[in-house]
Amino acid sequence: MKTLIVVAHPKLVESGTQQFLKMSLKTSQDVTWHVLEKNSISLNVAAEQKLLQSHDRIIFQFPLYWYSAPALLKHWEDEVLTRNFVYGAGQSLQGKELGIVVSTGDAKQGFSAGGSENYTLSELLKPYQALALKAGMKYLSPFSIFQFAYLTEPEKQRLLVNYQQYVTNPNFNTFHGRELWLEQQLEQKAAASTKPQQLQQILAVIRDNRENLEELKWTLGMIKDDEDE
Amino acid sequence: MKTLIVVAHPKLVESGTQQFLKMSLKTSQDVTWHVLEKNSISLNVAAEQKLLQSHDRIIFQFPLYWYSAPALLKHWEDEVLTRNFVYGAGQSLQGKELGIVVSTGDAKQGFSAGGSENYTLSELLKPYQALALKAGMKYLSPFSIFQFAYLTEPEKQRLLVNYQQYVTNPNFNTFHGRELWLEQQLEQKAAASTKPQQLQQILAVIRDNRENLEELKWTLGMIKDDEDE
Repeated sequence: MKTLIVVAHPKLVESGTQQFLKMSLKTSQDVTWHVLEKNSISLNVAAEQKLLQSHDRIIFQFPLYWYSAPALLKHWEDEVLTRNFVYGAGQSLQGKELGIVVSTGDAKQGFSAGGSENYTLSELLKPYQALALKAGMKYLSPFSIFQFAYLTEPEKQRLLVNYQQYVTNPNFNTFHGRELWLEQQLEQKAAASTKPQQLQQILAVIRDNRENLEELKWTLGMIKDDEDE
Repeated sequence: MKTLIVVAHPKLVESGTQQFLKMSLKTSQDVTWHVLEKNSISLNVAAEQKLLQSHDRIIFQFPLYWYSAPALLKHWEDEVLTRNFVYGAGQSLQGKELGIVVSTGDAKQGFSAGGSENYTLSELLKPYQALALKAGMKYLSPFSIFQFAYLTEPEKQRLLVNYQQYVTNPNFNTFHGRELWLEQQLEQKAAASTKPQQLQQILAVIRDNRENLEELKWTLGMIKDDEDE
């Protein structure tokens, strides 16, 4: 799976969140970090469209400005996502995935009825969901980062792993998918390590746990089937 | 009531809808037609903020591009609507009204669950509603124009009157408010006419109708009150 991260931040270098997210990603052939330049009046539309076509998961990554992406991303959408490319003769994005990585300086609890922002992020990001549906793309549950500056170190570590999964794991939204992804990461780490024994032991424990869990699930399924009869 | 229309259309001169809307408005001291220029990298933020402060009803007028305003308007929002101006120390927009005039090439029935656009305009325009709430403004029910090019002449006439009311009538959303506005318009027309007799007759009929209606309403109210007792 190849992922394209379209990064739209007018003050990218000053953004602690964006720098942290960039550092979280290992350099890999499967992830393209694509920064939208400010004042890019003349976008190369053909090149941008080609870039989109050569990836499977497209991620719009931006800070929330007035309940939407910065103008930078909207300009790119207006120019690059031509009618023909998206839903005319082309349908060039059909079957791909659209994800949103959105950061905000407001607290999570503000985004609810009666909260300081009044609406949920799911409601506010509807235009992107509508775009995905129109393009025949699968809309991924948005990945939101609230008040990054106030996160503790353990919270940042969790954010890092979750973000890596959102970007690189085809099945980041199921427990089974997350587990398999973790196993893969450990295998890679073990293979590259000079002292892989400890990692191999951790891997063995995780695999045992997973097998136990699968057995339990199978038993539970049997019981439910019995009840249905 | 003073109204500011913030017009955001990248191809303004070519837009039949925008030209029609502009022609619909009589030149008046109470309505400001404010066109956002393309490539306005360096907006005069102070001047824009002053303009907003000197009006009571602010209208964002734009064609729907990817389920939102063109980048032109988002750029203006991102630059002009600073935190301090809107909800910090300033709260400069509090008590004003925010209206949206949105045109789209898609048919009305597309904007619903299961329709070609999947969501209603009320859902898609949530970011503007959230902005209004944050700024302490009253959010007006959006004024939408579907497939202008296909409208018949009588439909265009109705659009014209409805648009005039959305821009200039403080109470455009009640029957009583619309009626009073219409009477005012006829009075002005009669005062400026060399042969006002016919207009005066029409006015007399409308007033009679209104009085009859008010009497009926009063009677209806009495009956309901009786039922409640």
